[in-house]
Amino acid sequence: MPQQISVITLGITDAARSRRFYGEGFGGVPVHETPEIVFYQMNGLVLGTWLRAALEADMQWPGPPGAPAGFALGLNVGSAEAVDALLRRLEAAGGRILRPGDAPPHGHPWEIAWNPAWPIDAEGRVTFAI
Amino acid sequence: MPQQISVITLGITDAARSRRFYGEGFGGVPVHETPEIVFYQMNGLVLGTWLRAALEADMQWPGPPGAPAGFALGLNVGSAEAVDALLRRLEAAGGRILRPGDAPPHGHPWEIAWNPAWPIDAEGRVTFAI
Repeated sequence: MPQQISVITLGITDAARSRRFYGEGFGGVPVHETPEIVFYQMNGLVLGTWLRAALEADMQWPGPPGAPAGFALGLNVGSAEAVDALLRRLEAAGGRILRPGDAPPHGHPWEIAWNPAWPIDAEGRVTFAI
Repeated sequence: MPQQISVITLGITDAARSRRFYGEGFGGVPVHETPEIVFYQMNGLVLGTWLRAALEADMQWPGPPGAPAGFALGLNVGSAEAVDALLRRLEAAGGRILRPGDAPPHGHPWEIAWNPAWPIDAEGRVTFAI
């Protein structure tokens, strides 16, 4: 299992402020943008900023609104089968499955995903695509 | 300004459980390990797991214990001067400086750092070193 992070998704509450901070502050140029989510291509991984309520609904976050949600780490693997295999292994290592299928374990939420549109190079670097 | 993330530091409360999850679950091999912090080399960035109280003290986190702290994103730049220049730009773009000098802005905590020991290649990929 390579040591990789494919995507960091930050839960935001103010889309305009976030867009300004990442755009004007860091000079980020979105690779994909809707009113509720913006993706930026980083150095071999993708940064997403997503309205927090939508992010927490997507990850089926069980806790009260608050810590330690508000963000998610994602790992893209090479096949749908690899998703299930890794989820079983993470659960055996003390992770908690939040959502069957492509569910992130609890604690620090990790999403294990297979996205055929996102190329993963030999060194694990991920490029945004739709 | 390149679009980069150099380090993700997760605040943890149970070092043994975290070590097992990242080690046995993801197969992570630490590149540096102490009783309170473990670093893993990822795909061009570094993942750190650090006891949460120490992380929040380091970032001078002002909020009540809870959301949205518990983690920090870091960007390593090429010089000490570049730290200050970027901090000013991030503040102008709506960020809030938590700590003078190498302070992370508030909201989603970002640390802007200059670490002469960590190589940054031409594509912005960062390698752990001490």
